[in-house]
Amino acid sequence: MMKIYNYKKSHALFKKAAEIIPCGIYGHYSPSPLVPATAYPFYTAKAKGSRIWDVDGNEFIDYMCAYGPMVTGYGNPKIEAAAAKQNKLGNCTTAVPPIMVELAEYMTDLIPCADWAFFAKNGGDVTNYAVMVARAATGRDKILMISGGYHGVSPWMQTAGHHGVMDDDKKNVIAIKWNDIAQFEKTVSENKGKIACFISSPYHHPVFCDNEYPADGYWQSIEKICRREGIVIITDDIRAGFRLDMRGSNEFFGYKSDLICYCKALANGYPISALVGSKDLMNAASKVFYTGSYWFSAVPMAAALANLKEMKRTNAPAFMLKQGEKLLNSMVKIASNYGYDLKVSGAPSMPYLRITNDPSLMLHQEWCAECTKRGAYFTSHHNWFISTAHDDKDIKKTWDIVDDAFKAIKKKFGDEFQL
Amino acid sequence: MMKIYNYKKSHALFKKAAEIIPCGIYGHYSPSPLVPATAYPFYTAKAKGSRIWDVDGNEFIDYMCAYGPMVTGYGNPKIEAAAAKQNKLGNCTTAVPPIMVELAEYMTDLIPCADWAFFAKNGGDVTNYAVMVARAATGRDKILMISGGYHGVSPWMQTAGHHGVMDDDKKNVIAIKWNDIAQFEKTVSENKGKIACFISSPYHHPVFCDNEYPADGYWQSIEKICRREGIVIITDDIRAGFRLDMRGSNEFFGYKSDLICYCKALANGYPISALVGSKDLMNAASKVFYTGSYWFSAVPMAAALANLKEMKRTNAPAFMLKQGEKLLNSMVKIASNYGYDLKVSGAPSMPYLRITNDPSLMLHQEWCAECTKRGAYFTSHHNWFISTAHDDKDIKKTWDIVDDAFKAIKKKFGDEFQL
Repeated sequence: MMKIYNYKKSHALFKKAAEIIPCGIYGHYSPSPLVPATAYPFYTAKAKGSRIWDVDGNEFIDYMCAYGPMVTGYGNPKIEAAAAKQNKLGNCTTAVPPIMVELAEYMTDLIPCADWAFFAKNGGDVTNYAVMVARAATGRDKILMISGGYHGVSPWMQTAGHHGVMDDDKKNVIAIKWNDIAQFEKTVSENKGKIACFISSPYHHPVFCDNEYPADGYWQSIEKICRREGIVIITDDIRAGFRLDMRGSNEFFGYKSDLICYCKALANGYPISALVGSKDLMNAASKVFYTGSYWFSAVPMAAALANLKEMKRTNAPAFMLKQGEKLLNSMVKIASNYGYDLKVSGAPSMPYLRITNDPSLMLHQEWCAECTKRGAYFTSHHNWFISTAHDDKDIKKTWDIVDDAFKAIKKKFGDEFQL
Repeated sequence: MMKIYNYKKSHALFKKAAEIIPCGIYGHYSPSPLVPATAYPFYTAKAKGSRIWDVDGNEFIDYMCAYGPMVTGYGNPKIEAAAAKQNKLGNCTTAVPPIMVELAEYMTDLIPCADWAFFAKNGGDVTNYAVMVARAATGRDKILMISGGYHGVSPWMQTAGHHGVMDDDKKNVIAIKWNDIAQFEKTVSENKGKIACFISSPYHHPVFCDNEYPADGYWQSIEKICRREGIVIITDDIRAGFRLDMRGSNEFFGYKSDLICYCKALANGYPISALVGSKDLMNAASKVFYTGSYWFSAVPMAAALANLKEMKRTNAPAFMLKQGEKLLNSMVKIASNYGYDLKVSGAPSMPYLRITNDPSLMLHQEWCAECTKRGAYFTSHHNWFISTAHDDKDIKKTWDIVDDAFKAIKKKFGDEFQL
């Protein structure tokens, strides 16, 4: 019998937090999409490798990886050593650190589309900056994006009608369907000479629904249209970056991007984001005034450089894709043993899963919750993340948990959702 | 004869950087306002206490403090110990750290206007969020701000016509003059029921010109009008926060703020910003979706908590104000010995200086450059910053440098600018 976790301390602390912090825990860390919230830990006490321990002492194989930033293992000794070495010299000072130039050199060598690099903190810093650069370069106002695409929390990026978002914020944003070249063509021709840029993740990874790869020839058609119309292509690689291809996820899907936004996996959790771009746009990038208090800090740059080198050395994306496939193939089989259809979409290194037997997602939520309560941290609404720290031992243990969780929901629901 | 610095390595590295980074160095770290740029170092090799060393081995007493973040000394052992201890446990993980609740508790206890606290990375994250909260709370769109006020780099905060900024971005922003209650009243009555918030620093600290304290009764009048009209008061305390008063700079000037934005001095350079607010606005704050990849990281929170406690224990704002006054009083006297009128404005802990003899600022730039080349890092366009690490030895050495620099410009310009 597997141990079923309880979260007494987590939930007591949350109650206290809710008095003095909006939502108690806000944003993408909010417990609200963790259904039922009683199945999830809210506070991390310790993290190491592929594991986190919550404040109640429960241990988890962490398949969320801090929603992406953790990519080479929590507390990776190589990254930590590089960060500590730099921190002894200095971090946030009055002039910039030499390592900023070294990091820019490394990234422009690594990424074929990158002739230059710009560093910030948030993913949203660089998606915003990318759009401003595209506007400055083209003299156009409109932004083309994919419905359900996520590019940060600036008002223009949020859904119209959300709290704090004005209609004016969305005035220059046109959202179209993913993988729909006909709609793309139509929208471009209806807004001829007005669209500054097309911003999109390299494949579609929304929450609460199946993720979608580009259809054959999709990006190649997009590229052709954008070149013809002078529309800047912005690849938002904040989530997928370095989990598909070290050279940029656009290379994985075979297209050239004018600008690429990086964040999460860049520095294994150290706070840094980056925009890289083509020579053509460097002048426009130089004209836009864009900055932040901590953007020139040396430690996250040292961590990024060490992390990129380590990922390159180990061919981390290939390893994570392989580990993901291994994990998922057997999980699908285990599911079918219990009469459940577990659908996997997106990249195996950051898969989105869904039990199709119940379209309401309730059954899927129940199963993710049962897995989490047994030590495999699975969200039900968001793609998961594999890191290079997820080894075969983790995967084997996960299969055992997955099996036990399917057994539990089968016991609870009987034949109700059987196909 | 004092040693005059040269910056061969800094400038060689910058040349390389300019090939692969927009502007080489961008934003507020850009060398462009450092006039003449040949007098300034561009790259920090090492930082400790009140000092930085550049890549050419030159040592500086640093009066910019990373443009604000450094407040208790580079590499402060207490802050570093707290950060290192937390880093061993974990930093950016899949759930939030317990220290987030502890930090929120500490700040809501410390700051009278704060019933809740929200954490992010950039100063601009929390000014943006504050405006969204005010809009969500009031259902109004318009923002009132002070001409020349700086609240970050989001398009609405930038000057109309700047690259990447659209006219639409500025549509709901009304800029008025500092210390002008009549214009404030007029603007409010012309936009009755339409203004969501008034965002302003607690005193006016623009670049390239004298800083200004609020006139007697200014904030009290603002408060009265805003209460009457249901306008949310947002204090942008990103630059002045914890350099005037631990309880919020609004307390220093005797008014109540609905929201206060913090960043720079919060964690002695560790990347964290905060919005604190009144109970009335907690519901609106909870409704706005706002988040970032690294906002729940534990290390900057641990650093912030240690830094705030240390500043509280030592009454850091009072010390920095006193050290600033000591430094500046004698500097003004030294200037007058050479026939120059050195005007000091703003808070002594973050003073703006200007030699009034030459209204073009050229003479002031020459003097700041001469000081910097002798080891006192002074910018000519931006207010400086004092930290608790600036001791009497630093101040004495600075006076010597200041004297020698005045001697040098007197020698260069003779009686040209004498009053």
